[in-house]
Amino acid sequence: MLLQDLDHIVFDTETLTLSLLDQRLLPEEEKRFLCTSVDTCITALKEMVVRGAPAIGVTAAWGAVLAVNEVQGLKNWEERLQDKLSLLAAARPTAVNLTWAVRRMRELLDRTNPKTPAEALYSCIEEAQRIQREDVAICRQLGANGSSLIPDDSCILTHCNAGALATAGYGTALGVIRAAFEAGKNIRVIADETRPFFQGARLTAWELARDNIPVTVACDNACALLMQRGRIDACVVGADRICANGDTANKIGTFGVAILAAHFRIPFYVAAPLSTIDRSLDDGSLIPIEERTPDEVTHYGTRAIVPDHVPVFNMAFDVTPNDLISAIITEKGVLRPPYTVSIKKAFS
Amino acid sequence: MLLQDLDHIVFDTETLTLSLLDQRLLPEEEKRFLCTSVDTCITALKEMVVRGAPAIGVTAAWGAVLAVNEVQGLKNWEERLQDKLSLLAAARPTAVNLTWAVRRMRELLDRTNPKTPAEALYSCIEEAQRIQREDVAICRQLGANGSSLIPDDSCILTHCNAGALATAGYGTALGVIRAAFEAGKNIRVIADETRPFFQGARLTAWELARDNIPVTVACDNACALLMQRGRIDACVVGADRICANGDTANKIGTFGVAILAAHFRIPFYVAAPLSTIDRSLDDGSLIPIEERTPDEVTHYGTRAIVPDHVPVFNMAFDVTPNDLISAIITEKGVLRPPYTVSIKKAFS
Repeated sequence: MLLQDLDHIVFDTETLTLSLLDQRLLPEEEKRFLCTSVDTCITALKEMVVRGAPAIGVTAAWGAVLAVNEVQGLKNWEERLQDKLSLLAAARPTAVNLTWAVRRMRELLDRTNPKTPAEALYSCIEEAQRIQREDVAICRQLGANGSSLIPDDSCILTHCNAGALATAGYGTALGVIRAAFEAGKNIRVIADETRPFFQGARLTAWELARDNIPVTVACDNACALLMQRGRIDACVVGADRICANGDTANKIGTFGVAILAAHFRIPFYVAAPLSTIDRSLDDGSLIPIEERTPDEVTHYGTRAIVPDHVPVFNMAFDVTPNDLISAIITEKGVLRPPYTVSIKKAFS
Repeated sequence: MLLQDLDHIVFDTETLTLSLLDQRLLPEEEKRFLCTSVDTCITALKEMVVRGAPAIGVTAAWGAVLAVNEVQGLKNWEERLQDKLSLLAAARPTAVNLTWAVRRMRELLDRTNPKTPAEALYSCIEEAQRIQREDVAICRQLGANGSSLIPDDSCILTHCNAGALATAGYGTALGVIRAAFEAGKNIRVIADETRPFFQGARLTAWELARDNIPVTVACDNACALLMQRGRIDACVVGADRICANGDTANKIGTFGVAILAAHFRIPFYVAAPLSTIDRSLDDGSLIPIEERTPDEVTHYGTRAIVPDHVPVFNMAFDVTPNDLISAIITEKGVLRPPYTVSIKKAFS
C-alpha cells in the first residue's frame, strides 16, 4: 500500500473517535492520537499532531462532528454548538482551510436545520466524510494538472510538507511530484528540513521514502548552494492561505526559497486546492501570521539549543508576493499571472 | 570580565597542554577539552571542539607546538615533524587560516633552522603566542574599522558565529558589533541559528548575552520575513576563505542571506583578517568546500530527525560572489569593490 493511500486521519463512526497519526513523533514512532472531544481535537491542531492546511480542514470537519456529539441532551444546544465551533475555528490563525471547513459545517446546519443534535450528527458525519473524500480527489486532480510542469530527469525542491500527511491523502506539492513520478518521469526530490518543526526532514522524507520516490534532505540554508550548482530544476510548495491577488502564506522560509529561485531563474510553483484561496483578502499583508512558542526553536528533545533567557523569533509562516510565483496549481487547472484575473476565473 | 577577554584557547607551557573550551557542549555545559598530542588537536579541529577560521588558525599553531614536542628524541625528527604538520594542515579543507598558521610555523622553522626539537619548541611556542596575541589585536582593529558602518539604533543580522569563540578573542563580525556597541550605539543583533551545528543559536547568542548585547535567535529560514518587515538594517558575517576577487566562502547559508540582502537592498558586510584572504585563488569556484558527516543533520542529541536510509546533503560552506558583498572589513581598513584592486592594495 502506498502511503498516499494511508489513512492518517480516521474517524470511527461507531465510537465517535477521531484517530490521528501523531506527526510530532515521526519518523521515530508511528503512534495514533485519539480525540473523543472537540477540546482534544483543538489541542491536536494547536500542538501540530496534525498540520498542513488541507489536513487541518479535514480534521476540523471531524472536530465539528465531535462538537455536535458533545451538545447532545443540552437545552441550549444550538448556542453551545456555535460556541464550540468558534473555538475550533480559532485553533490556528493562518491556514484558511480551518475556517473554511468549519464554515462548511455551519452552512450545512443552516441548510438542514436539524431539530436535535442526534439529527445534526448524522448529516455532519456525512459532510465530514465528503470533505475528506473530496480532498483526496482534489489532490489527485491537482497533481495531474501540475505534473506537466515537472520536467523529466529533474530535481524538485520542496519546503515543509505538503504531502499525504498535510492533506487527506496524496498531497498538494507532493501530489504534483507523485503524479509526475507515476507518469514515469525520472524525478528526485530535495526536501528542505524546515526548521523549527522539521516537517521536511521528518515528514516529507518519510512519506516519499515509503513511496520509493528518491529524496535527499538538506538544511534550509543549503538552498542557495544547491541552486547555484544547478541541482534544482523547479520548486513546488504548498500553501496555508492564498489571497485574491495570489500572495501566498506558507511555512516560514518559503518566501526566502522564492527569492532565491527568482535569483537563479528557477520556476517556483505553489500547489493548493481552491479551499486554500481566501478571496476576501486583497493581498498578503492582511493574512494573520501565527507566532508559536519559543520552545520549538530553543529545544530539541531534551537538548537546549539556545541559552536561557535569550529571546527567539518564531513566526510560523511568511507571505510570498505574487510576482515571485510562476504558477498556482489547483484542481481547476494551472493558474498564471495576473492572479487577480486567473483566480477569479477559477471560482466562476 | 567580558567574554571578549575569555581565554577559550589556552596553552600551558609547563605541561605542554592545549586547553580548549568545548564548543560542541555550549550553551548547556562549559567544559574544557585537553590536547596533549597533535592527533588530539586534529580531532578537536575535525569534530569542531573549536571552529571559526581565525580560531582554527590559532589552534593549529598550538597543534604545531605539540607536533614539535612529539618528535623529541626521534632520529629523523625533521621529516617526522613535516609529516605531522601536513596532517594538521589537512584537518579541515575550507578555512585558509589553518594552512596559513601551519605555513607560518614552517617558515619560522626554515628561518631559525633549529638543531634539535628542544630548540625548535621554544621558538614555536613564542610564534604561537604571537599568532594568538596578534589575532586579538587584529580583531580589535578590524572591529574599530567596521564600527562606523553600523548605524545607531539598528538591528544587525549575523550568520553562524564569527565572535570571540571563532577567533582568539573579540571576534570578526561580532568584533564589528562589539566595537559599535562599545562606542555607545544602540544595537540589537539577530543571530541566525545556523543549522546544522547551531553556531548562531548556541555560540553567538551565548557570547553576546554574556556581554549584554541584545540578541534574538531566529531560524535560518526566517531571514526573508525579517528583512521584509524592515527588522534588519545590515548583515555582518565572518569568512573562512576570501579569494583574490573577493568571493567569500563562509558557513553554509551565508550565500542565501547575501542574495536576500541584495533583494531588500540591505548592506551585506564580510569581516575577516587578511590571514583569511587567499590571494592564490582567483575566484570562489576554486575553494574546496568541506562535506561533513550526515549525522549532524540527521540527529540532534538522542533524537532522529531524518528517517533511516534517507540521504542528506551536508556541505559545510558556500561561496558568496563578490558582487553581493558591500564591503570587506579588515584590520587594514574597509575594502570596497572592485576587490581585485582593493585586496591587492591591502597587502601592499
